[in-house]
Amino acid sequence: MSPTLPFHPLVLIDLGGTFAFAISGAVAARQASLDLFGILALAYITACGGGIARDLCIGAVPPAGMADYRYLLVALIAAVTTIGAYRWVTRLRYPVLLFDALGLGLFAVVGAHKALALGHNAEVAIIVGVLTAIGGGVTRDVLLGRVSVVLKREIYAMAALLGAALAVVGTRLGWPPLWSTWVPIAACVALRLMSMRFGWNLPRFVVER
Amino acid sequence: MSPTLPFHPLVLIDLGGTFAFAISGAVAARQASLDLFGILALAYITACGGGIARDLCIGAVPPAGMADYRYLLVALIAAVTTIGAYRWVTRLRYPVLLFDALGLGLFAVVGAHKALALGHNAEVAIIVGVLTAIGGGVTRDVLLGRVSVVLKREIYAMAALLGAALAVVGTRLGWPPLWSTWVPIAACVALRLMSMRFGWNLPRFVVER
Amino acid sequence: MSPTLPFHPLVLIDLGGTFAFAISGAVAARQASLDLFGILALAYITACGGGIARDLCIGAVPPAGMADYRYLLVALIAAVTTIGAYRWVTRLRYPVLLFDALGLGLFAVVGAHKALALGHNAEVAIIVGVLTAIGGGVTRDVLLGRVSVVLKREIYAMAALLGAALAVVGTRLGWPPLWSTWVPIAACVALRLMSMRFGWNLPRFVVER
Repeated sequence: MSPTLPFHPLVLIDLGGTFAFAISGAVAARQASLDLFGILALAYITACGGGIARDLCIGAVPPAGMADYRYLLVALIAAVTTIGAYRWVTRLRYPVLLFDALGLGLFAVVGAHKALALGHNAEVAIIVGVLTAIGGGVTRDVLLGRVSVVLKREIYAMAALLGAALAVVGTRLGWPPLWSTWVPIAACVALRLMSMRFGWNLPRFVVER
Repeated sequence: MSPTLPFHPLVLIDLGGTFAFAISGAVAARQASLDLFGILALAYITACGGGIARDLCIGAVPPAGMADYRYLLVALIAAVTTIGAYRWVTRLRYPVLLFDALGLGLFAVVGAHKALALGHNAEVAIIVGVLTAIGGGVTRDVLLGRVSVVLKREIYAMAALLGAALAVVGTRLGWPPLWSTWVPIAACVALRLMSMRFGWNLPRFVVER
Repeated sequence: MSPTLPFHPLVLIDLGGTFAFAISGAVAARQASLDLFGILALAYITACGGGIARDLCIGAVPPAGMADYRYLLVALIAAVTTIGAYRWVTRLRYPVLLFDALGLGLFAVVGAHKALALGHNAEVAIIVGVLTAIGGGVTRDVLLGRVSVVLKREIYAMAALLGAALAVVGTRLGWPPLWSTWVPIAACVALRLMSMRFGWNLPRFVVER
């Protein structure tokens, strides 16, 4: 995605989502007592790791998260903000969760569209859409030596899956681009926000011994 | 590998191996209390992660494990089976170990052959053969926050190495394709099954303090 | 990098750095009670994992760490040495740390130059330079289920960042190749060695609760 209008809503959500993802990486890194480099690195990897994995899988090298300086810049600003204004960032909890949800929807949908635009099939598009949305967060947790919350609870990856699948379905059904972008994003964000509001979780299955 | 005969033995082993690998991912995910998405994701990653890593390394994008819907489908069936019939799956322990061994051999040999077919050298073929066979299992354990059993005990990766190396040697010596496929698979599976039967392990080295 | 003179200083540092990185992987694997395969695998991954990740990101497949047998060979020699002469290796602590620092500088600078040579921009070059230098060590720690020391303390990744950034700046400023290679390596190695000598660390930020 290379939007040309600086105030296009997609750009704002993209950078806002990158910022929110980077905040979550920096906060987790700081809580794990990483040093300055570790905090910067985790902010960047959480924000851009999913997109980088997507680009490797669909043959788009170098990955946009490396070649486009804006992603790195926004991630570094988020990291420095987390370091310098930690109390303020923790008080920003709700805006950050909102932008995280928006970023989740946008990353899943844009990831799927990018795969389709490069000629890949529906299955590849859905898988890399989900990978774009959750890859950074899972990598953050792997680097911190813990099982990722993305795999354990909350409707998070499933919301990304809904967004990516709707983006593919809409494109295949010939929806106009505006629809096949915004309807899936709205569905993903709505599911994510409602699951947080109402405490929805996916089922887990107790092991019978 | 794109076999055209649906009942070709390679297809049966390939899908059987995928199923067995996915079962091991789903069982481990369930034991680690992952949610529904986590179980589906770990089944898929355990079954297809090695092949995806291989394809990234040899420039075959998109990876077959993403582009060919059969792998995803088989992994999801294995995950759902593990959820719905956990007792039955645990009673299936021996067939699953058998297909796991068959999958190990097939993945190592097919991985090596795919690298050779794309013009890569012997070293690349052997390394990506082993990567195909063990990459999914190692990724499963990394995502679950534990040191992979593949790196710690049992003759598992070494059996894959034997299979991949024999596939390369056989091809270089001009064996007919049938031989350079089945002899290495048989050697890998035999070594794996015998090591389980007789409790063979690779040496470990106690650290002298 | 494919140097043709066997005793070119870059070759010596490259193989010496590979050896030092592989030693650190093999020692860590042995201390974690991995088996023979685990020790060999961790030596190889620690030495070559960063370069492999770099090559995937800049589209240089197959990765040099897989296609060039010398890297694998040196890593295996380091692993076998660690197994057979563990006491001797631990007594080699200072030479290993020295070559580790040299390898860090060389990997960062050569990684950045390789990206530039393939036509990538400055940001890509700096990121993959750092990735080349620290990717193997981070992967080693992830496989051992621990938070990487690279992200937690010491001036290590930051020294690599200095080297990669100077290599890009020097190249952009039109320095002769010899300068834009050796000045950044020297700066990285000097910063790394001084930080070890004087116990420098990057700041960490205590979480206020």
